[in-house]
Amino acid sequence: MKIGFVGLGAMGHPMARRLLEAGHALCVYNRTAGRADDLLAMGAVLAPTPAAAARDAAIVFSMLSDDAATQALTFGPDGIASTLGADGMHACCATVSLEQARRLRDGHAARGQSYVSANVLGRPPAAASGALSVIMGGEAGLVDRLEPVVTAFACRMFRVGHDPVQANLVKLSLNFMIMSTIEQMAEVFALNEKAGNDPRALFDIMTGSFFNAPVHRNYGQLMVDGAYDPPGAPVTLGLKDTEMFLAAGHDYHVPLPYAAIARDRFLSAMAAGDGERDFVILQECVRRDAGLGPRRDQTDGGDG
Amino acid sequence: MKIGFVGLGAMGHPMARRLLEAGHALCVYNRTAGRADDLLAMGAVLAPTPAAAARDAAIVFSMLSDDAATQALTFGPDGIASTLGADGMHACCATVSLEQARRLRDGHAARGQSYVSANVLGRPPAAASGALSVIMGGEAGLVDRLEPVVTAFACRMFRVGHDPVQANLVKLSLNFMIMSTIEQMAEVFALNEKAGNDPRALFDIMTGSFFNAPVHRNYGQLMVDGAYDPPGAPVTLGLKDTEMFLAAGHDYHVPLPYAAIARDRFLSAMAAGDGERDFVILQECVRRDAGLGPRRDQTDGGDG
Amino acid sequence: MKIGFVGLGAMGHPMARRLLEAGHALCVYNRTAGRADDLLAMGAVLAPTPAAAARDAAIVFSMLSDDAATQALTFGPDGIASTLGADGMHACCATVSLEQARRLRDGHAARGQSYVSANVLGRPPAAASGALSVIMGGEAGLVDRLEPVVTAFACRMFRVGHDPVQANLVKLSLNFMIMSTIEQMAEVFALNEKAGNDPRALFDIMTGSFFNAPVHRNYGQLMVDGAYDPPGAPVTLGLKDTEMFLAAGHDYHVPLPYAAIARDRFLSAMAAGDGERDFVILQECVRRDAGLGPRRDQTDGGDG
Amino acid sequence: MKIGFVGLGAMGHPMARRLLEAGHALCVYNRTAGRADDLLAMGAVLAPTPAAAARDAAIVFSMLSDDAATQALTFGPDGIASTLGADGMHACCATVSLEQARRLRDGHAARGQSYVSANVLGRPPAAASGALSVIMGGEAGLVDRLEPVVTAFACRMFRVGHDPVQANLVKLSLNFMIMSTIEQMAEVFALNEKAGNDPRALFDIMTGSFFNAPVHRNYGQLMVDGAYDPPGAPVTLGLKDTEMFLAAGHDYHVPLPYAAIARDRFLSAMAAGDGERDFVILQECVRRDAGLGPRRDQTDGGDG
Repeated sequence: MKIGFVGLGAMGHPMARRLLEAGHALCVYNRTAGRADDLLAMGAVLAPTPAAAARDAAIVFSMLSDDAATQALTFGPDGIASTLGADGMHACCATVSLEQARRLRDGHAARGQSYVSANVLGRPPAAASGALSVIMGGEAGLVDRLEPVVTAFACRMFRVGHDPVQANLVKLSLNFMIMSTIEQMAEVFALNEKAGNDPRALFDIMTGSFFNAPVHRNYGQLMVDGAYDPPGAPVTLGLKDTEMFLAAGHDYHVPLPYAAIARDRFLSAMAAGDGERDFVILQECVRRDAGLGPRRDQTDGGDG
Repeated sequence: MKIGFVGLGAMGHPMARRLLEAGHALCVYNRTAGRADDLLAMGAVLAPTPAAAARDAAIVFSMLSDDAATQALTFGPDGIASTLGADGMHACCATVSLEQARRLRDGHAARGQSYVSANVLGRPPAAASGALSVIMGGEAGLVDRLEPVVTAFACRMFRVGHDPVQANLVKLSLNFMIMSTIEQMAEVFALNEKAGNDPRALFDIMTGSFFNAPVHRNYGQLMVDGAYDPPGAPVTLGLKDTEMFLAAGHDYHVPLPYAAIARDRFLSAMAAGDGERDFVILQECVRRDAGLGPRRDQTDGGDG
Repeated sequence: MKIGFVGLGAMGHPMARRLLEAGHALCVYNRTAGRADDLLAMGAVLAPTPAAAARDAAIVFSMLSDDAATQALTFGPDGIASTLGADGMHACCATVSLEQARRLRDGHAARGQSYVSANVLGRPPAAASGALSVIMGGEAGLVDRLEPVVTAFACRMFRVGHDPVQANLVKLSLNFMIMSTIEQMAEVFALNEKAGNDPRALFDIMTGSFFNAPVHRNYGQLMVDGAYDPPGAPVTLGLKDTEMFLAAGHDYHVPLPYAAIARDRFLSAMAAGDGERDFVILQECVRRDAGLGPRRDQTDGGDG
Repeated sequence: MKIGFVGLGAMGHPMARRLLEAGHALCVYNRTAGRADDLLAMGAVLAPTPAAAARDAAIVFSMLSDDAATQALTFGPDGIASTLGADGMHACCATVSLEQARRLRDGHAARGQSYVSANVLGRPPAAASGALSVIMGGEAGLVDRLEPVVTAFACRMFRVGHDPVQANLVKLSLNFMIMSTIEQMAEVFALNEKAGNDPRALFDIMTGSFFNAPVHRNYGQLMVDGAYDPPGAPVTLGLKDTEMFLAAGHDYHVPLPYAAIARDRFLSAMAAGDGERDFVILQECVRRDAGLGPRRDQTDGGDG
């Protein structure tokens, strides 16, 4: 059974590798072909175009950076849709807007092709160790066929409905929960710091009591460390995700004040020139408003 | 070693009981003396006034409902401060404003008395099973003496500084994290519901991925159940706590936009006549703004 | 000197009529040609396409409903740009997004054509009486030629820079000031009403003291009257304008919290099914949050 | 007919002087007696205490800086209430909280004394020229007697209800409208400046179109000038007034998101050390969030 994979970025590459290691016949495409070298050495086949990756594939995954890339490599010249067969399906793993998710759903439907959303939760190391979560949306029969394959890179699978767009909304929602938790913790850290409380002690109390989820531990740690560089995910991405969530609120007529505030923080971080730093730098906007100077990174000390 | 305990409410009563069960000589005061009956049967002594509970006590705990009660029973006629001795200390466990916390600190200091904050995290069942967390603030020597005693009702102890007020701020901060997590989840639930996603499925995805802290599980469950009555903690309390956190922001000049929004939600819940229902009913304000009708309680089904 | 006019809607029609009355040779285009009948009777020429209206025109005005219509009738088949000559210029009067404003500027520039923004302030009656304000942006020489012509429908002319897009931003800014003044007054009216103060008495105090601008008088009157139908301008338009202002904030990295709140109010009005009612109905969202029922229209009473 | 006047500050002094010039027999009290020198030279009598100013007075005005001063000089030792007679009335002109307004109303009522609110709009020059507006609340008979007297310093009189507290709420509401107009204009100015539009040109368009009220002209001018020193009214006052408005929202259960944002801006200005500068410096918080540096005062140039 041939599996296609389009997009070998920071997330796509380890996901593809996991598929290969699980024994699947993999055909990969990436704009910069060099990213595939190690996969080819392991037995993958290089596709010159997305169309070639999708031809005769049982499943073709795409994991691209944004709406535009996803649209272009799906429906553009030599795109996935130009060759996707009646027995195949396109599983889009990227975090895209609901508008783009609808274009994917409707574009494939108009061509009589099968399409599912397979949004992933987790960062690259989780992909590499097969520890991602996957949120799948689409027809039950398609998801049934998809599920055993994604076990190659995911340890938890969730299903959220027959309409693939529903899975995209869940993904945007979870990302918003990350952003708003950062704002929430930033307000707490700034106030406590001004009152003389040590942020690290406060972090220990949080994570030692009711606030011990990965979202608290992972992002809270980056915040108390002031670890903004290199970014796990940059402000530009946080802003994009927040605006996609707000756009979903527009579509369904739902006011989202916490999201609006997160958006404003990211814009302020952009204005400060911090667009390519980790999005937990949002806390610097909170600190600035409170008259606090920037938090220094305390993780790479050393004796230098 | 005599221990005094002032305030046998929903939290204070099980805390006092745990102290008694741990073998301490306990002298209790409550405005409504009948609340102490079972404790007296277990060997506690009934004090007719807070002053009597505090006289000769090594530690006198107070666990009262608000600033006014705490102030009155500490510094009013026959209050704790009127008899607290040089070898004793007052450990205030109530969630009070920073302004009140300063009055306690300064009032006892002016009398040459020892005072510590011992704020507790957790609801009544946690108190009854000795599973509270305690955040202690005060002079190290005092906290050293307090710590072995609070192990009667707490399994985790945190220290946050020599100034007792610092512990009060941490407590207010953690309560704010609860309120803002509710708003955050309410925005997510409302949007997803309008888009056709089942809140329970979404809740499973949250708590099955990065958002599995007690704050997510406990409050999220109440939210998807629409379990507003009887309240674990009512809107009036959520509003009061949020306003105390905002007052702390005033004191230290820290803008707190997420707290301001939570306050507005609670005011809206008050305006809707829901002041005495569980504060997760905040989500109904989010739902109303989104054009959604009220969520019905789905926990008490029965066979009807 | 031939003048073209594309778009004879509620605003465009009286503007075109004023141009005709001022003695200009006018060639008009509208999708629904019947809208031009009275103008033709007064001597205007009917153009079958925007291209025909623009051919050999010294100035071709466009006054269309949104970005898409403006783009289509400018650069689409038989659009303005297909015939606009070296001696002509396109003056776009519509309220469009900055993104669309850039497309107009750049699209015409790429064709070597002259283009200016001529955004108008005021409602249809002001257009009919020549009392509009016009905000012009573009090369000084073009604006010099435009100005004497717009005096036909405008009594005040403002220039804001050589880049036409700058005028569009000013227009979006002024519209935002209307929306945010409505929210501001709505908060005041709701609070005072709950406290027992008569909104009409309050309105008299506002407009009799520091708050006597047209924005206060016009919209405040609609608010105390609860005059939502028929709409002067509907919620859908208020939402669109507010989102275009927020998009400008995105482009320039400027947080705009008051605009974000206005957006949420309009979304809430949409969710309540009030999209086609006057946008001062925003105040009903404020009232609902405050536990107040809807304000009834008190302008058309009688026994009819 | 004797008139008493308590509080000769920046507003009280010119109000008292106008009363004297109108021919009233005036008895004045001020903590710093020297403030009264010119009034004594014009025929006023110096009272050693508020009680002396109120004794046998037909009306005793108070114009004090805040709740605490008003409370102390009214109900404290030698306060107004200690001597106010059955034929007299206390007219409080200060901007106080609703809580304090209720204390005044109820405290006088408990003593069988007459009390009205007479809140004034306008800055000291308006007081000096008799151009204030006065918002009066209280029993109709009392207001009837008050009105001819306040014509000495006011040219517009408004009545808002039999409960004096209602007038206080109107005053707080109008002050909020000033603060929120500043935030509104600040967002517009910051965005336009980043887009290359000259703030002064924009100010001319605003005030030349729908936004030409005194609130726009007076505060907008200060904003484009960056005229923060010396303050007409400082940030501390803007913050206090905004928090009193928010407290009124609490009392009546009305969410007030625009007020909450204004409060956060003032807190941020306090955090930046600008508490004693003019409250239009609120715009610097907006500018800072947008990555803009501080606006320089361009009013006092020259070589002086």
